[in-house]
Amino acid sequence: MISIQEMAVFCKRKGFVYPNSEIYGGLAGFYDYGPLGVELKSNIKREWWKRHVHERDDIVGIDGCIITNAKVWEASGHVSSFQDIFLECKKCHERVRADEYIEEKLKIKAEGIKPEDIDVIVKENNLRCPKCKGEFGNAKPFNLMFKTFVGPGEDYTTYLRPETAQLIFVDFKDVVENARLKLPFGIAQIGRVFRNEISPRNFLFRCREFEQMEIEYFVDPHEKDNCPYLKEFENYKLKVLTDDMQKKNLEEKEMLVKEIIKKELLNPWHIYWLAFEHKFFVDLGVNPEKLRIRQHTKEELAHYSKDCWDLEYRFPFGWKELQGIADREDFDLRQHIKYSKKDLSLYDEKRKKKFVPHVIAEPSLGVDRAFLVFMFEAYNYDKKRENIVLKLHPKLAPIKLGIFPLVNKLEEEACKLYKKLRTRFVCYFDKSGSIGRRYARADESGVPYCITIDFDTAKDKSVTIRDRDTTKQVRVKLEELENVLEKLINKEMEFEKAGKIVYEGE
Amino acid sequence: MISIQEMAVFCKRKGFVYPNSEIYGGLAGFYDYGPLGVELKSNIKREWWKRHVHERDDIVGIDGCIITNAKVWEASGHVSSFQDIFLECKKCHERVRADEYIEEKLKIKAEGIKPEDIDVIVKENNLRCPKCKGEFGNAKPFNLMFKTFVGPGEDYTTYLRPETAQLIFVDFKDVVENARLKLPFGIAQIGRVFRNEISPRNFLFRCREFEQMEIEYFVDPHEKDNCPYLKEFENYKLKVLTDDMQKKNLEEKEMLVKEIIKKELLNPWHIYWLAFEHKFFVDLGVNPEKLRIRQHTKEELAHYSKDCWDLEYRFPFGWKELQGIADREDFDLRQHIKYSKKDLSLYDEKRKKKFVPHVIAEPSLGVDRAFLVFMFEAYNYDKKRENIVLKLHPKLAPIKLGIFPLVNKLEEEACKLYKKLRTRFVCYFDKSGSIGRRYARADESGVPYCITIDFDTAKDKSVTIRDRDTTKQVRVKLEELENVLEKLINKEMEFEKAGKIVYEGE
Repeated sequence: MISIQEMAVFCKRKGFVYPNSEIYGGLAGFYDYGPLGVELKSNIKREWWKRHVHERDDIVGIDGCIITNAKVWEASGHVSSFQDIFLECKKCHERVRADEYIEEKLKIKAEGIKPEDIDVIVKENNLRCPKCKGEFGNAKPFNLMFKTFVGPGEDYTTYLRPETAQLIFVDFKDVVENARLKLPFGIAQIGRVFRNEISPRNFLFRCREFEQMEIEYFVDPHEKDNCPYLKEFENYKLKVLTDDMQKKNLEEKEMLVKEIIKKELLNPWHIYWLAFEHKFFVDLGVNPEKLRIRQHTKEELAHYSKDCWDLEYRFPFGWKELQGIADREDFDLRQHIKYSKKDLSLYDEKRKKKFVPHVIAEPSLGVDRAFLVFMFEAYNYDKKRENIVLKLHPKLAPIKLGIFPLVNKLEEEACKLYKKLRTRFVCYFDKSGSIGRRYARADESGVPYCITIDFDTAKDKSVTIRDRDTTKQVRVKLEELENVLEKLINKEMEFEKAGKIVYEGE
Repeated sequence: MISIQEMAVFCKRKGFVYPNSEIYGGLAGFYDYGPLGVELKSNIKREWWKRHVHERDDIVGIDGCIITNAKVWEASGHVSSFQDIFLECKKCHERVRADEYIEEKLKIKAEGIKPEDIDVIVKENNLRCPKCKGEFGNAKPFNLMFKTFVGPGEDYTTYLRPETAQLIFVDFKDVVENARLKLPFGIAQIGRVFRNEISPRNFLFRCREFEQMEIEYFVDPHEKDNCPYLKEFENYKLKVLTDDMQKKNLEEKEMLVKEIIKKELLNPWHIYWLAFEHKFFVDLGVNPEKLRIRQHTKEELAHYSKDCWDLEYRFPFGWKELQGIADREDFDLRQHIKYSKKDLSLYDEKRKKKFVPHVIAEPSLGVDRAFLVFMFEAYNYDKKRENIVLKLHPKLAPIKLGIFPLVNKLEEEACKLYKKLRTRFVCYFDKSGSIGRRYARADESGVPYCITIDFDTAKDKSVTIRDRDTTKQVRVKLEELENVLEKLINKEMEFEKAGKIVYEGE
């Protein structure tokens, strides 16, 4: 696996991701997506929305604002508690995030340690500024929300949302009524969020502006152990690392979902959502060897959550959170009921009384982290081809097809086919350089299928399709072409069955 | 046409749009999209991206940050000039946007008037606070960008982007290189933008947070009169209102594109983009009678633009800008060259020298305004049905299909079909209430086709499809169903030809 720095270089070189406002020296923690990046990112979001919203009858979506009434963030606890602690060098004023710095230097867990305890650790271990070796001042908390002002005169202060989740709670009552939702149900949202990280790092892994795909999944608290969908995952395998195993310094262990249920390691809905999210990545090409589910330790657990598990990916810089799935119970709705004095409860027809539903799972995924994972999984240096081959799942590939005339003479014919295909598939036309050079460029951009129009095309009404991953080639009739391509892209057909094999690959 | 207030009520009732954080009293100028709204909005964006990026070989996309280095906004002129002028009541401190208030009260054009001239007008006409009739203080400029701070300690001030366009200029050099672009070409972007409007108004028409779909289209300044695509629009009709006609108080006049070219009313590229954007709306169901193109008067013209035309729509509150298309020449790239000291020019292979390309057209469209236009066009009260029918183009409709079992006994069979169809189409299952009631609900939500499973379905392997707009019904074989639906949604097939007509409609 290449390093995160190498990935950043590759992403810039191919037009996936650029450092934001680089001509002005950039801005730490902000990245722009280029021509290939914007397509990959939008494919990830589309596949996620399709699987979580369109293909289910229990989840609907919303799209809320980034700037919202400040009371939302008072109720949610973000104004008082969404903070990190930083240390500032007395000499050069360099700032570091205290817990991360301590973990890095002393190899101990430091998440959630209070400022006064940090000061003790810093003193006892004589920790100093990483830049100038100067002495640190006292540890100070810092709220991670970006502040802004609404209206002329800066008289109303509010914040850019640090998560999409709260908008779901605030709009809860309208959504339930409009979409005629019955428990259990979920509400989904994709959107930009902002966290003023003290030290953004690792390229897209920890940015100050990023995008989330979140679901709040609500259940009746009386029926929270009853998950009707779990059956389909009984024999699904997951690598598991519990709080207990971490305390004993054990490694993650592969288990079947039904074993996890039997051992009562977590709530049935909770395990269902972890397996569902795990499968989302595996179905789109992520190696399950590099995925595990890890329980938050008691110390890590946020104030609002009863239990939380992360779906983790083995990045080149270690196992890290790809997606957090928390059991938040009724914390958020209760807070908003308290602060807004509005009734956000539902009516229980069985028990003839009102109740507040519980969020049994909150699958919360960063689009940019998912983007990184798919890129790491796809990136391959092919020694035979002496070329990078980006083996993205065809559904995620930014461009599905390259259309090439074998020689310039065939340009018109090839261009006609290109213009027909582009109404249905994202594709491009390339006539410059040798066919080999054109294949190499396509491989580096992750184009799964290249179509070549040659001298026989006019006669046999056929074209050659070349498979990115194997370099195999098949001959396909023009009249069947669109249907074959549709099936290949959706992985509903093996490449070898797409037509007569004319090249066996390298 | 219903009023904008009635539209806001309808949008909330059906789950299209909610006032943001309404349980906390809302926040003026901010709106959330509900379950139907998020789908309609995303369909608008998808159709726009398909037509402007995927189906063209001269435009690629990017997706930049909302927060960016502050120098971007110094270079673009936004820090010094992106401002409105407001008047504040000395007594009750109510604030109004000066130009709008003067236009409303005195029925004169006031855009671009300077603070000192406003003070004179206010005094001469004895204009007073609309709320308490108090006296106004002096007119004051107010920058419309939202301010924020990056990093701990609020030491770096920057702004939320007020337009997506500048990100395109800042990333220009990388994009051109990565996508191997040759002039003429465009770079497209869709994304949230923020303008701290003094008085947001008219529901989604003027919000403080909204979404833009923008293109910067670059040409070689030596070849700016040569638009190869214009031919296909020669006989396209547009209603035209020039600066001159406005001075003479004339009404807009219908003209063919070729007449407009002959009269040299505007640059060929400029007219091409206006026609292209006009057709985008017409193809998706907007009545061309309600669209016109209007030239900015000399007084309105922004400092950076040589010529600007708006595509306007006749809203219930008058003809208003739907989309502005400016000829910005090389203003922006030159500013960024000056401020960044980086070389953003291209190499002219013909003339063997470097040059800065010109932006001949900048089609800039608000997603939320487009949303409003499609909603106004679709909204119909059907007297026969005694019901609202939302006649959205099937491509834009949030939900494409409703799947109904005629009676509860057929639920399982219908549900099986629903689960099959939802992997390909956005659809929902509805078994509650009479078929008539279910049709009515579908009509109000804009669902173009409803499929009913009845007692004959098991025998004749067919279902009934009902057309929202005509209430006609056809009988279609299950094996042909998916292909028929695909064609109907894409308007590639007339409804009457979809199958045997079994009901002629009301």
